[in-house]
This record gives sequence, structure tokens and C-alpha cells, in this order.
Amino acid sequence: MVEFIHTATLLHDDVVDESSLRRGRDTANAVFGNPASVLVGDFLYSRAFQIMVGVGSMRVMQVLADATNVIAEGEVLQLMNCRNADIEVDAYLRVIRYKTAKLFEAAGRLGAILGEAGPEIEEAMAAYGMHIGTAFQLIDDVLDYSGQEAETGKHLGDDLAEGKPTLPLIHVIQHGNPQQAALVRGAIENASSDSFAEVLAAVRSSGALDVARRHGVAEAEMAKAALAPLPDSKFRETLLQLADFAVQRSF
Amino acid sequence: MVEFIHTATLLHDDVVDESSLRRGRDTANAVFGNPASVLVGDFLYSRAFQIMVGVGSMRVMQVLADATNVIAEGEVLQLMNCRNADIEVDAYLRVIRYKTAKLFEAAGRLGAILGEAGPEIEEAMAAYGMHIGTAFQLIDDVLDYSGQEAETGKHLGDDLAEGKPTLPLIHVIQHGNPQQAALVRGAIENASSDSFAEVLAAVRSSGALDVARRHGVAEAEMAKAALAPLPDSKFRETLLQLADFAVQRSF
Repeated sequence: MVEFIHTATLLHDDVVDESSLRRGRDTANAVFGNPASVLVGDFLYSRAFQIMVGVGSMRVMQVLADATNVIAEGEVLQLMNCRNADIEVDAYLRVIRYKTAKLFEAAGRLGAILGEAGPEIEEAMAAYGMHIGTAFQLIDDVLDYSGQEAETGKHLGDDLAEGKPTLPLIHVIQHGNPQQAALVRGAIENASSDSFAEVLAAVRSSGALDVARRHGVAEAEMAKAALAPLPDSKFRETLLQLADFAVQRSF
Repeated sequence: MVEFIHTATLLHDDVVDESSLRRGRDTANAVFGNPASVLVGDFLYSRAFQIMVGVGSMRVMQVLADATNVIAEGEVLQLMNCRNADIEVDAYLRVIRYKTAKLFEAAGRLGAILGEAGPEIEEAMAAYGMHIGTAFQLIDDVLDYSGQEAETGKHLGDDLAEGKPTLPLIHVIQHGNPQQAALVRGAIENASSDSFAEVLAAVRSSGALDVARRHGVAEAEMAKAALAPLPDSKFRETLLQLADFAVQRSF
């Protein structure tokens, strides 16, 4: 269910962002066009809800209906924040909690619900999902300025071309020198990656990537801490490793 | 719930069809762009499922999850049939059963389920919805060739510009004279409304609109017949009138 919802959001996301590359492959909208991507996304959304009906749990339905709605709200928020160079870190974090972390949170919560693990474990797994999802997105946004295209499988600079104010850029605007701040502000407000090389230099020399990466690591640590109520097991061990992997990855 | 799902499909449909006019107003995609239309559609879909959770009935959930999935399948089928001048009437009818009539069917069925009317009335209401939905779409397709823009609130010829093989066109291809058939076939295969005036003349002189309209009226009659098991009431009376209205409307 979660994978279908996730894939549906990606299909729609690539239409919204006009992305042409994902996971090193042409996107569905690039190959089949926007109409097919929109409609097949709708098909997967509704198929996910059909699978939920098969599960027969109203709690499962509630968690995923809520998550799906929050994700859409997060995507709309992100759209409204495009070209906004004055966004605060808190508002940026809210967007990524909604658009990305909410589905991780739902996935964690559902595992606990379906495993009948009780409310304490359920809240622990939900918190784990929320923090690891936030960490994942923070690093994703860093990789748009630090990654190698061959590794990330995405076009670098795509975020900038959409005027998407992610944490590395917000940091330059708030803490870079006046020239750096003006450069990044201009790129966001014009939604242009023409000056990508200069923006990249400003992002790197201002220490913005380290700040964003440290923020991601802190979220990963919170994810790991959230697992405290879980009994020792190889599954718990894997979840701990997953949190580290989310912030150490280069792809 | 049904209205939210319906609105979500319209938002996505107008993106898919690149429509700029609906109900006499600029479409959301024309005013706010495709991204907002896609995302707000997703928001409404998921909000509809949240409302269903509030209703707390797994049957309601199942009916609407199934309907939403079939609608998406119908839209994909329609997309695959664009520019296909060889589509058979049966395949065309399947598309409109899926993309349009299914939601009417679900709406009828849900009224019976929520009113605890029992299986016989539920099937009657579902059949009523399916037939009136089919009638509605048949007439909608006729209005794209017979209506007045000021009344329909849509751009005439939009179907033709998408290469959408609706019943009036299928009739000309299968039963018009060779010149008419070749003209319509060419317009569908090129997805062009350049020859809209000539296509319109061929549609009108071939009797295609009457054939399609009669088909719509027959569906409306089946809708009315399906109401036989319902006890007399002003509500039943209104449903009967609604079936007539669906095929007599000019907008």
C-alpha cells in the first residue's frame, strides 16, 4: 500500500516538477507524457485504497487516508513556496515533514498496528518514521548540490531551476556574505539554474551543506533514539542501520 | 465524498485534456497551472477517503475505492483510444461506463447502503446510476457537436482536437458515405479540429447525432425501469425526472 502511494506521488511529482530523470532513468512523464503519468498515478492511489479494503482495518485506512492528504498538502505548500527566497527554516521543515516524512511515519505506524504491538511501540515506530523521513529529505536536498548525477540518478540543479528554496539555499541567504545571498536570492526568485555553477560555489563555501547535513544527522539520531522502547532484535538492528544509511548515502 | 472524487477527476481530466473552459469558466489548470490542478486533485481524493473513514463503513470504502480505480482505468483506456478511428461501439461504451457511469453507479449504491435499504434496492439504485451515467455521457458527447458554447460552457470541437472517437464520429465512420468517413477518420487520426466545420456537417447530415441521442434516451429509459423496485415517493419521482433531464438538456 505504501509503495503504491509512494509511486503515485512520484508520478504526479515528476509532472508537477517537469522532471525528466529519476533513479537514473527517464521519468514516466518524459516517456509517456503528462496525461499517462497523472492517470496512472490516480490508478495506483485508488488501487492502494482497494488493497486497504482487503486488509479490512479502519485504523489502517485512517492512517493512510490522513497521510495521503497531508502529503498532498505538503506538495501544495512546496508549490506555493517556489520562488520564495524569504522562507524560514521552520516553514521549510514543515514542507518536508508533510510531503516526505509523513509517509515514512505512516509506514512505521502501520507496521506496529498490523503487528498488534501496542500503543507505546506504535508511537515509537511513528516517531522513527517521521525522523528518518525528515533526515532522508534533508540529505536529498543536500545531494542536489553535492551529489554526482551518475550516483543520484537525478539532474543536479533541478531544485534551483524550479526556484525551490531548500535548506542549503536558505542558509546561504541567511548566513552567507551579501554577494552570495543576493546571488542565491536572485536564482530562487527567477527560478533559474543559469547561475548554477556560481550558486554551487556559494553553497559550498558558505558551509551550507555541512549545516544541512548535520541537521539530517540529528534527525537520524532522533530516529534511532525513538527505537528505545523496542526489544532487541535483528529487525531493530536493521532499523538502526537504516537511519545511518539515510544520511550517509551518496545516491 | 462523491462530489470531492468527482471534482478531483475533473481537475485531473482538464490537465489530461488540456481543456481551458468548463461550466463556462476558465479551468483551474488554465488559471493556476497544471501543478496546482494535479496536487489539489490529489488533496480532494484523499480528503474524500478521510471523510469515508469518518463514516466508518468498510462497504462504503470498498464501493468508492473500486469506483475510483475503475474511473482511472477508464481514463487510461480513453487516452489509449485517442486517435483510434477503428474503435468499436462496444469499446467506446466500456470507456464511458468506466470513466463516467461508474461514479453515478457508486453514488446510487451508496445511498442505498447508507439508508440500509437492503440488497434489492441497492442493486436497483446501482443500475439506475449506471444507466443514467451512461446516458449523461452519451448526451455530453452529442453536445460537443450539437450544443451552443454559451449553453454547454465548453469549447465545441475539443473532443475532436484530442482525437477522441465518440459515438457521433464512430457512426459517421461506420455508416456515413465514403467521403464523410474519410474526413472524420482523418480528423481523429490527426487529432485535429481544423476541419471541425466539415466534420460537423458530416456528423449532422449522416444522422449520427440522432443515433447517439437515441442511444442516450434508451439508457435513460433503462435507468427509469431500474427504479421499479422502489416504493412510490417524491424522491423516486425526482429520480425519474432526473433521468429525463439527463437526455433533454442542452447544457
